[in-house]
Amino acid sequence: MPINFALTLEYDGTAYHGWQLQDNASTVQGVLLDAIERVTETRPTIYASGRTDAGVHALGQMVNFELDTRLDSDDLQRALNSNLPRDIVVKQAKKVPPDFHAQHSAVGKRYKYVILNREFPSALLRKCTWHVRFPLDVPAMREGARHLVGKHDFSAFWGGDGDDPRDAVRTVDQLTISQAGDSVEIRVRADGFLRYMVRNITGTLADVGRMKITPRRVKEILESRDRKQAGPTAPPHGLFLVEVFY
Amino acid sequence: MPINFALTLEYDGTAYHGWQLQDNASTVQGVLLDAIERVTETRPTIYASGRTDAGVHALGQMVNFELDTRLDSDDLQRALNSNLPRDIVVKQAKKVPPDFHAQHSAVGKRYKYVILNREFPSALLRKCTWHVRFPLDVPAMREGARHLVGKHDFSAFWGGDGDDPRDAVRTVDQLTISQAGDSVEIRVRADGFLRYMVRNITGTLADVGRMKITPRRVKEILESRDRKQAGPTAPPHGLFLVEVFY
Repeated sequence: MPINFALTLEYDGTAYHGWQLQDNASTVQGVLLDAIERVTETRPTIYASGRTDAGVHALGQMVNFELDTRLDSDDLQRALNSNLPRDIVVKQAKKVPPDFHAQHSAVGKRYKYVILNREFPSALLRKCTWHVRFPLDVPAMREGARHLVGKHDFSAFWGGDGDDPRDAVRTVDQLTISQAGDSVEIRVRADGFLRYMVRNITGTLADVGRMKITPRRVKEILESRDRKQAGPTAPPHGLFLVEVFY
Repeated sequence: MPINFALTLEYDGTAYHGWQLQDNASTVQGVLLDAIERVTETRPTIYASGRTDAGVHALGQMVNFELDTRLDSDDLQRALNSNLPRDIVVKQAKKVPPDFHAQHSAVGKRYKYVILNREFPSALLRKCTWHVRFPLDVPAMREGARHLVGKHDFSAFWGGDGDDPRDAVRTVDQLTISQAGDSVEIRVRADGFLRYMVRNITGTLADVGRMKITPRRVKEILESRDRKQAGPTAPPHGLFLVEVFY
């Protein structure tokens, strides 16, 4: 009887072309699959809570796959960590019921986006923050963010190329912005996310913060359902998938 | 008349063989010198507050050098940042009096050492924390650290090879240990530091934290003035030169 294993992964997305397996590029899924193969001599299908794009990091990506093995979850975790490069770490491994599916069983996710807000960039944080030189008005950003909380059609913040007719309604139940020193952190929790949604929200709120648009304009952008109304897509390296809820 | 410029530098030490210029290895001083040469067509002598070893980071290394230039300090900062790789950043540049010397004028320095204390390593923090698997008893570490505060002969924590007869008396006026989540941070402020002193203190306090030695033993080690009594040298990548005082 195969066992369904779920892993909690932390990864530094810097070196990878995102989560999803690709033929000619190094991806987190591909590297994990290679490690599983070295440990178990099989290449199972791996399901993730969702893709992360190139350069995006994860503190708690969730994945699952079935293995026919005598390894218990602690053994599997140790064996995989020994076979993974240091920029991917299995933080937890556990046996889950056969019907657990990292994507379909998820009821929500939390992301954070970290902005470094000071004149000069940081040597140490360059791969995990977005450097924004202009001083950001964080209270204005919070006022703009308020319009995004709740159940809305987020088409305006969707980075898809528009030819996918999927439903774009999502419920954002938390969107907070904190400031500590020169770091501004945007945390978003929702029942699901569209592609580039957090990065488009971040780019738009940064436009509010630098007073290019008013907080009220965020509501108009949301209601327009038109991607061309929203701000720029913030770069991937400030984004972290923090947690997936089941 | 040459102008004496002082720079505050942030750098990610990961890619460098330390601060000090070397013939066959990439160092922070060497890379900075190349950038200064591209900007000013001269290679001045650069004085730093002190060396940092290979892999050690800096949030506020101080350096100075003389230039015969019409550039003001803001121009110089911008020009250097444009000519430096992204892992070295000039946070501030200013004109200082002719007798200012980054090393000799310094009256103290502050370092921090960051330990990640949890079972599995971190993918994201692997280059700027020391991963310690065994749960650390932080109150015991604080009790041990208490013995190091004040004016002492720190020979026992000196990584020199013993053939240098310099005075090893230093005054540690602050040594605090904070814990937040799975991060344990040791901050040390002193009028000066011996080579490897913070890393040897950290390695010894980690021995206290994992209950290999008692807090009281730290006092005996200090008084022995014998390097062989102290704990292991903690790895460089958890160490940050935070600030230099003048």
